[in-house]
Amino acid sequence: MLNMACKHQKEEKEIVSYTEVMISEFNDVERIEPLNWWVGFKNQDLQLLVKSPGISLAHPEINYSGVKIEAVHKGESRNYLFIDLQIDEQTKPGKFNIDFKFENGEEKHQTYELKSRVKPSEDYMGFNSSDAIYLITPDRFSNGDSSNDINKNLLEQTIDRSNDYARHGGDIKGITNHLDYIEDLGFTVIWPCPLPTNDMPESSYHGYAMTNFYEIDPRFGTFEDYLELSEEASEKGIKLIMDQVANHCGAEHWWMKDLPFSNWVNQQKTFENKEHLTNSNHRRTSNQDPYASVKDKQEMSDGWFVPSMPDLNQKNPFMAKYIIQNSIWWIETAGLGGIRQDTYPYSDKDFMSRWAGAIMSEYPNFSIVGEEWSVNPLIIGYWQEGANNRDGYDSNLKSPMDFAMQGQIVNGLNEEEGWDTGLIKIYEGLANDFYYASPKDILIFADNHDMSRISTQVHDNAEKVKMALGYMFLMPRIPQFYYGTEILMNDTEKPGDHGLIRTDFPGGWQGDTINAFTGEGLTTAQIDMQQFVKKMVNYRKHSKAIHEGKTIHFAPEKGVYVLFRVLEDEVVAIILNKSNETSLSTSRFYELGLRGKNIKNIISEEVSVWGDLVAINSNGVTLFSTKIKN
Amino acid sequence: MLNMACKHQKEEKEIVSYTEVMISEFNDVERIEPLNWWVGFKNQDLQLLVKSPGISLAHPEINYSGVKIEAVHKGESRNYLFIDLQIDEQTKPGKFNIDFKFENGEEKHQTYELKSRVKPSEDYMGFNSSDAIYLITPDRFSNGDSSNDINKNLLEQTIDRSNDYARHGGDIKGITNHLDYIEDLGFTVIWPCPLPTNDMPESSYHGYAMTNFYEIDPRFGTFEDYLELSEEASEKGIKLIMDQVANHCGAEHWWMKDLPFSNWVNQQKTFENKEHLTNSNHRRTSNQDPYASVKDKQEMSDGWFVPSMPDLNQKNPFMAKYIIQNSIWWIETAGLGGIRQDTYPYSDKDFMSRWAGAIMSEYPNFSIVGEEWSVNPLIIGYWQEGANNRDGYDSNLKSPMDFAMQGQIVNGLNEEEGWDTGLIKIYEGLANDFYYASPKDILIFADNHDMSRISTQVHDNAEKVKMALGYMFLMPRIPQFYYGTEILMNDTEKPGDHGLIRTDFPGGWQGDTINAFTGEGLTTAQIDMQQFVKKMVNYRKHSKAIHEGKTIHFAPEKGVYVLFRVLEDEVVAIILNKSNETSLSTSRFYELGLRGKNIKNIISEEVSVWGDLVAINSNGVTLFSTKIKN
Repeated sequence: MLNMACKHQKEEKEIVSYTEVMISEFNDVERIEPLNWWVGFKNQDLQLLVKSPGISLAHPEINYSGVKIEAVHKGESRNYLFIDLQIDEQTKPGKFNIDFKFENGEEKHQTYELKSRVKPSEDYMGFNSSDAIYLITPDRFSNGDSSNDINKNLLEQTIDRSNDYARHGGDIKGITNHLDYIEDLGFTVIWPCPLPTNDMPESSYHGYAMTNFYEIDPRFGTFEDYLELSEEASEKGIKLIMDQVANHCGAEHWWMKDLPFSNWVNQQKTFENKEHLTNSNHRRTSNQDPYASVKDKQEMSDGWFVPSMPDLNQKNPFMAKYIIQNSIWWIETAGLGGIRQDTYPYSDKDFMSRWAGAIMSEYPNFSIVGEEWSVNPLIIGYWQEGANNRDGYDSNLKSPMDFAMQGQIVNGLNEEEGWDTGLIKIYEGLANDFYYASPKDILIFADNHDMSRISTQVHDNAEKVKMALGYMFLMPRIPQFYYGTEILMNDTEKPGDHGLIRTDFPGGWQGDTINAFTGEGLTTAQIDMQQFVKKMVNYRKHSKAIHEGKTIHFAPEKGVYVLFRVLEDEVVAIILNKSNETSLSTSRFYELGLRGKNIKNIISEEVSVWGDLVAINSNGVTLFSTKIKN
Repeated sequence: MLNMACKHQKEEKEIVSYTEVMISEFNDVERIEPLNWWVGFKNQDLQLLVKSPGISLAHPEINYSGVKIEAVHKGESRNYLFIDLQIDEQTKPGKFNIDFKFENGEEKHQTYELKSRVKPSEDYMGFNSSDAIYLITPDRFSNGDSSNDINKNLLEQTIDRSNDYARHGGDIKGITNHLDYIEDLGFTVIWPCPLPTNDMPESSYHGYAMTNFYEIDPRFGTFEDYLELSEEASEKGIKLIMDQVANHCGAEHWWMKDLPFSNWVNQQKTFENKEHLTNSNHRRTSNQDPYASVKDKQEMSDGWFVPSMPDLNQKNPFMAKYIIQNSIWWIETAGLGGIRQDTYPYSDKDFMSRWAGAIMSEYPNFSIVGEEWSVNPLIIGYWQEGANNRDGYDSNLKSPMDFAMQGQIVNGLNEEEGWDTGLIKIYEGLANDFYYASPKDILIFADNHDMSRISTQVHDNAEKVKMALGYMFLMPRIPQFYYGTEILMNDTEKPGDHGLIRTDFPGGWQGDTINAFTGEGLTTAQIDMQQFVKKMVNYRKHSKAIHEGKTIHFAPEKGVYVLFRVLEDEVVAIILNKSNETSLSTSRFYELGLRGKNIKNIISEEVSVWGDLVAINSNGVTLFSTKIKN
């Protein structure tokens, strides 16, 4: 509850034990952001947004060793002041007052804190191909604290589990309570969809219409709950990804009633006259297209994502700094293990490169994954750091998302086998890796919160779900898994329906008759899938061959496609079999040198010998490893 | 008739007027290739293949100033000798004898000629984006000399115009006779499918199973006919592309009965035992795929294209030199304006880079187009010279083929308009140009000899044919057009049937009741299409905006997609309209600055003013230009 922290800052005094000099604390301005900052960053600049009636008329002064006001900028609204500070390398952590002097002699004061950093920048470790990510829609995973379900200060008041688009009460506590379950499945990273406040009149459950970038939505819990989640996850070796949105805010964001600049959001004029509001044309290729018209580029970048989400103007330098500082504030505050950035190509692309660059410059081992929903590998690769782009663009983004392979895996499994249909789509899709700067840093997923569940995508064929998951966990990628897929959750009743995709996880609510955390009430097929996921993900957790090994695959033949990962004496094989055959001749694979070696079936744990033939599941997936002991 | 030239070389003595020293000419060996060579090449090396019974036992000697034997290599077959010559810069053109001395004292002699070059290397001008290519299947265009229809020395004896897979009698003379027609349509390049001898028992008409790389198929005419075609075309400013095949030969190639080396073709052992012959797996992505197994790569590159076409082994250095020298021989002999190289990704890719590099090094302004049938832009771009390939591969190939955009144009026209269907496929397809080293050097086509006619592809909708052609002629590409498309030739009766695709051009045979050269008997729709092509291609011929101008396009809206080409004061617009609207609001296009300017409809030649609205064809294409006088 950060704006409450802002309003009642004096109450926090007691817990701030490391301030060296006790000062009289003031809280005269309505809002100051970032809420605090730190000493010891590589980048010594800080820009404060100060909001208060008439504050633009004030002259701010700071008297604190090592902190210098470099410049002061008035907002176009008289209620905003932006203060550029320089924080010297030797500056000590502590609190100081900012004195705002008005020409009429009036004065206001605001206390601001520079904290000391908890750990060095290098220790903020991001995720990588040795990790497996568990994606959660917080409102739909588990209700750990029913007391926060409804907040009377917020616009959306109802809670209704029978309505797919209403809030269901899931929260941070619900995730924290079930970290054991996630750990047991083998996952090493959690990515909850956005947790900051979405004080919107409807559909606030999804989190992508933020109305305060410095506050946890009270219906998800307190700021302390979030820190607790981060800490408890960290103790289990589980990293925390924060889902952030640089492109837009919710229409009810506090600044929409009084914008600091007329160009703070794009098309503010049309915003005020809602009839002429222009949405994004969503023509994302205009970011790369050498022939895109100026008109199309503008409509893409400056249009609003949807009418309820004003488009932030990152070309405004104050907005740009605001977003970068907000991201760094959360990394440092919550000890993040990664950021997932929403709607990547909708923001100003030069800004996005600076944003990611600023973060990676401060935290060299951090990870960012950006969402570009494109099935075109050319576009995916364009966004990855180190791309050989002819226009010179370097995104500084380590991890784009692999919507291309996600689609090809589904096509490959669903299509009838043919010369250029079926498994060949997966084989040829992966061949495109020759283009990427770093394939193993790209995020792969079978499904996510914005698309049909994988079970629905493969027509509720559980074996095909296993094939998809097995492949994605073996690919040279960072795998991301969506909560509930382990128990075959689906949206088959209304395919693609967002609310239904984000179904409640059974057992997450008191009184649920089915409990997927304990297994109670699950069908045999669900338990089987849960075991499959658990065995596979746990195998992967310790498999250097999968994390960083060589990849070798063989063109599909007779409905069978085989891919190997190899590192030193560990060989892992996945056999996708769309035929009725139950054995496979191994002669094609002689270059692997497996003949006569013991192999273990990763799922059944049976050990056998790699001979002329190996036993495989018909119309299913088989996973072998030469590591007999895991 | 080059092997005849080889057999009866003495008869040619009279026409060789520039030899400085008259020598006694001999022709003791069965075969020597290249048939001749030239002085004055940058590359001073020449490797002669000599075939004659027992010749590997001979010691060759040459006594000619400036010509030195660098090395002599015996074939594994005792009937082959390879002689490496170095030809000094100062060497004079002329003839000399090669004396083959055997240990038993026996001698054989062979006369060889080094010609002087007709023009400097720089003057061999290739095609580029200012050109438009007319592709012809020679057997099916026009029978200019019925006396050569059947050749009793060759295996396929029948001529049968009622059989789509038999020879129909079209020939080089038929093309030469109709250069006026091609010129009148506006084309500046002709690409006849291969003309060298295909002495195969069946389907020899297509030309891709060559049985002699140094001979024009006598059923297409004489070597002199080919030179005449080149010269007459050149006089009209029309360049000649030769269709070459480095990957394979016909199974009846003369060397198949006595191979110089056991690895002269791939899998010779399996060839001899035809039961175990292995075809290519046709998994072309293994050329790029970082994960392709050794097995898949070998099967791709070393397998035979089809059982009737042995796979040449370009890893054999003698074969490699043979192919390179053959290409250069034809360029120099026939004054070519380009080479089209068949089945590009099936040959050894490192060799292909050396092959193209050798040609381009000798002829810096030359052009080569390579066939890779892939709809994946990543693969197309990989093959283009200057690609930023991560594996370091540079093909030296200026012009790959754009099967990707060909497919997207058809998809875009056939699909119902929707958010991500219809014209958007064309718009987003072209956006991929950001990836290519040089989009304007890529070949675009609506159809060719290996795929359904464009009319069939767009379900015989003539307006859609015009849309496809209009777009391809305006794109930043080198357009290639297939003979007969101007009169809506189609294969709708049996879509995709190769023999039917390559239908006889009406009027090409004596007694044809319909004559597309004169227009006699054509339907109104055919005449209309012929006029459309003629106007468009002739406009393009002189349009610098299309040849090298900037491209600007606007995302499709309401079924209308607009693309502009701009250079200085010339603006050309193409409007693809899949709606029923007959006018278009121009406000979106203000950045072009066209308001109030005169514009000419390129097809109707009507002049109007670019106002708030412009008149456009409903469900059709409209082409505008600001050049009022063409």
